[in-house]
Amino acid sequence: MEKLEAIAAAGFDGVEIFENDLLACPLSPEEVRARAADLGLGIDLYQPFRDFESVPPEVLAGNLRRAERKFQVMERLGADLLLVCSNVSPAAIGDDELAAEQLRLLAERAAEHGVRIAYEALAWGRHVNEYLHAWRIVRMADHPSLGTCLDSFHILSRGSDPIGIEAIPGEKIFFLQLADAPLLAMDVLQWSRHYRCFPGQGNFDLAGLTASVLRAGYAGPLSLEVFNDVFRQASAERTALDGMRSLIALEQSLDGVTHPAVPAGFAFAELADPDPGSGTLGGLLSALGFARTGVHASKPVELWSQGEARILLNAGAEAGEPALVAIGLDSPDPGGAVKHAGSLLSPVLPRERAPEDVPLDAVAAPDGTEIFFCDTAWLADFTPGTLVAGPITGIDHVALTQPLHYFDEAALFYRSVLGLRPQESLELPDPYGLLRSKAMSAPDGAVRMVVNIAQVGAGHLPWQHIALACDDVVAVARRLRAERPGLLLPIPGNYYDDLEARYEVDPELRRLGVLYDRDADGGEFLHLYTVTVGRVFFELVQRVGGYQGYGAGNAPIRLAVQHASG
Amino acid sequence: MEKLEAIAAAGFDGVEIFENDLLACPLSPEEVRARAADLGLGIDLYQPFRDFESVPPEVLAGNLRRAERKFQVMERLGADLLLVCSNVSPAAIGDDELAAEQLRLLAERAAEHGVRIAYEALAWGRHVNEYLHAWRIVRMADHPSLGTCLDSFHILSRGSDPIGIEAIPGEKIFFLQLADAPLLAMDVLQWSRHYRCFPGQGNFDLAGLTASVLRAGYAGPLSLEVFNDVFRQASAERTALDGMRSLIALEQSLDGVTHPAVPAGFAFAELADPDPGSGTLGGLLSALGFARTGVHASKPVELWSQGEARILLNAGAEAGEPALVAIGLDSPDPGGAVKHAGSLLSPVLPRERAPEDVPLDAVAAPDGTEIFFCDTAWLADFTPGTLVAGPITGIDHVALTQPLHYFDEAALFYRSVLGLRPQESLELPDPYGLLRSKAMSAPDGAVRMVVNIAQVGAGHLPWQHIALACDDVVAVARRLRAERPGLLLPIPGNYYDDLEARYEVDPELRRLGVLYDRDADGGEFLHLYTVTVGRVFFELVQRVGGYQGYGAGNAPIRLAVQHASG
Repeated sequence: MEKLEAIAAAGFDGVEIFENDLLACPLSPEEVRARAADLGLGIDLYQPFRDFESVPPEVLAGNLRRAERKFQVMERLGADLLLVCSNVSPAAIGDDELAAEQLRLLAERAAEHGVRIAYEALAWGRHVNEYLHAWRIVRMADHPSLGTCLDSFHILSRGSDPIGIEAIPGEKIFFLQLADAPLLAMDVLQWSRHYRCFPGQGNFDLAGLTASVLRAGYAGPLSLEVFNDVFRQASAERTALDGMRSLIALEQSLDGVTHPAVPAGFAFAELADPDPGSGTLGGLLSALGFARTGVHASKPVELWSQGEARILLNAGAEAGEPALVAIGLDSPDPGGAVKHAGSLLSPVLPRERAPEDVPLDAVAAPDGTEIFFCDTAWLADFTPGTLVAGPITGIDHVALTQPLHYFDEAALFYRSVLGLRPQESLELPDPYGLLRSKAMSAPDGAVRMVVNIAQVGAGHLPWQHIALACDDVVAVARRLRAERPGLLLPIPGNYYDDLEARYEVDPELRRLGVLYDRDADGGEFLHLYTVTVGRVFFELVQRVGGYQGYGAGNAPIRLAVQHASG
Repeated sequence: MEKLEAIAAAGFDGVEIFENDLLACPLSPEEVRARAADLGLGIDLYQPFRDFESVPPEVLAGNLRRAERKFQVMERLGADLLLVCSNVSPAAIGDDELAAEQLRLLAERAAEHGVRIAYEALAWGRHVNEYLHAWRIVRMADHPSLGTCLDSFHILSRGSDPIGIEAIPGEKIFFLQLADAPLLAMDVLQWSRHYRCFPGQGNFDLAGLTASVLRAGYAGPLSLEVFNDVFRQASAERTALDGMRSLIALEQSLDGVTHPAVPAGFAFAELADPDPGSGTLGGLLSALGFARTGVHASKPVELWSQGEARILLNAGAEAGEPALVAIGLDSPDPGGAVKHAGSLLSPVLPRERAPEDVPLDAVAAPDGTEIFFCDTAWLADFTPGTLVAGPITGIDHVALTQPLHYFDEAALFYRSVLGLRPQESLELPDPYGLLRSKAMSAPDGAVRMVVNIAQVGAGHLPWQHIALACDDVVAVARRLRAERPGLLLPIPGNYYDDLEARYEVDPELRRLGVLYDRDADGGEFLHLYTVTVGRVFFELVQRVGGYQGYGAGNAPIRLAVQHASG
């Protein structure tokens, strides 16, 4: 019931009933039907019915008897479509004519109960595991109550080309189930049962497949069929809402809706500074060459700048320790961006402001970070100060650490709401666990975000960081090493022994604690980290020769040093 | 350092240094060497050195330069053996003679530094991925400083037969790395990096492989090389101790040490009963037909019996709610059993007792449950009462829920310390997550244990249960349904709609809420559950016709009802 309520609240108008859920449910089928109707939900499909077709005659009788019982349950539920999965039993016979004959018989019996049969090729079916093979058998059986069910996972996980769907008459596609998945090299049954996710959260081209299904003339529901260990543990409300968001995003991409306002850069990053008197954050920014260039007209917020890098320190934010609380994005159309976010069910934030303040449009990211869509007007809130030029030129990227349950949701959020494109996904060793990481960027690289989840033991806090683009990391390091050596994260000499075995690098990197990476095309990456303040630290990065990554190979070194010094 | 200390404390006398650990370590190689020496640890191996052999001449020069740097680090570390993994690079050339020639060159350079090279076939090596292939190349190279390294995972994950190891002269096996793993159908690289476990915790025959290595004449160290996401998150001390336990168990099985005292049955199960005045647990046992047949001479402990099923209710145990705190096992040799447990590093528990009490030998299981090894003398502690005959005849099995980090440890504990054999492993859906489950039993089925881990959302308590063997579950259910209907877990009617579609079963099962399973050989299982009291519930089980399972298909129904009523 909890699931039905969450599904209805998210705005769906129909559900599949998965048999296992019904079996464990204390309500009778009639009560489930009534409850669904009260919630405005139709029961579009009952599933699964397994191992029916292509069996020896003595098994067929038992299978038909089993089906009769299910038709009765379906009548009580008010469901008129039954999903039949291709037989996986070793006892199944590889004979298409036999399969077609027995499915025709099943369809005849079903018709007597007003039920229709949707036959689906499981990716691991014994003899039938390709969607076109299932369609061939359905056509051979030639019964009006028999059609096929298409499931994007079963089609795309085998690498089948979905364009063949356009060979199927739309009215013979009885049902469409959508699921995305990350590309994983593993047994397809395990992959399906544990790692499915919502469209847009994985690596499959759901829009392309759905376009083919619509081109075939299908007019039925788009249904999400997702099995995922993490989703199972998450709240049903939140999961249902995220599923609806994925369908809206899919629909928008099918309608050719392009993102109205992909951000053109970072306007600012805002840190909670609960103890400004200590000068910890301000001192750190000063040391990095920032200057306090403005003070908010009506709030306890300071603007610190260097080049195009702008950091707000907010003494009024609700936070027990320094933490990243908001990100401002330069938006060509703030109003359009927030409207687009709203259409994708993102919570648009109310903005309390003083009468003279410039209005700012903001939405909440899955982890609660506020995302502001800004034009340049926002700077008018701040009394102007001197502009500061220095080696730091802007914000290169922002890295957020998500709770485990929000990782897939965050990927979809940044992709659909902000219009960023997924880049690399990584798993990095951490001394106390594993760090999963997904990078996303605007097409021109002007905005880069990294979303992490830390699967670590208890008591290890998730860090966030702001990476600042820098013209000359070595120069900054040289100055800080002389003036404020305690501000830089120390890098072990062993790291440089290895680095120097791999590349001919300037020995000064070792003295300064600057890390180094090189890509296959000779692009170079120089970076360094500050120590952590509260939940936050800064990274200085210098990209040379078109380097597009994030120095991921060096992150385990950083994590080990941070754990050791935390 | 934390790792080295834990390793030394667990009694190891040497370590492999994994390069990533060193790179992130603030200590210099000399300091690591000194610290290891202080702890009594030799550095047996430095690893890995990757993608060296079978390369074009222009790459070779760079690789040799890289190796020279590593030899220097090894001299500083005091390590004289370097692991070279077979090349995985697409640039590698499939030419054994080239590989041998380049490895000989590497061995010559190594010899100048007093270093030896152990060449290993990675299971996913580009051209060399079988251990006999690596040995062929080593023999071809024919250099005294070049030998092979054997890794049980790389050998057994590919299904290679380890008996071929006996073709390798012992002195050319420079190193042996041991890791077990569960059988998983997935990409071997992912399998290796995330799911390795200690010998005896997975499905590989480590004893057979090690026996072949010893028969070949190998006299070097047995080294554990395990990559495991869960171990990463666990405490280093506990993991090191568990690793040592796995080696001791392996050694015992190689020495033909058989378990001195496999338990012959359950003597008792002990429940904490923090509020005996409420009569909740006593009332439940009464309703199930138990009688209070004894009271402990000196402690607030009651003995409740029916047939051979004995439950102790302990009002003095430290527990906030009813919970399973101890298990008594009938042992043919309690002293031998506890000595054996001690040899496997299990904590032997001190037993505070009154002067007149019978001494009892006990050890702590990984989750803290106390395991007592009993002969019949323990009953002398209890003032005798009437013996009770009834449909319940004994304890069929006990199911414990483990913290995630202790699951593999528990499997090894029950296997090595108690001499139980692993049976089925399962993953079951739970409304709020997934339940992983592993069953173990004495060879004759007299003792069965089920170890679960619940990967569920926060706030859902792990349950434990005692399954009671019963002659006639239907009769007990009939009586309870009439007298104490609230004691039985209600089973949804939908479950029976499905059951009756699959089997011809007595319609009374539905009325009584008795669950049913049938195995492939026609063996039958009838069972029911009581409601949960504190962390504990009871199951009544009736095995018919040699049924050996646990009704796993019905567990999701039970879990759903328990969650709904909790």
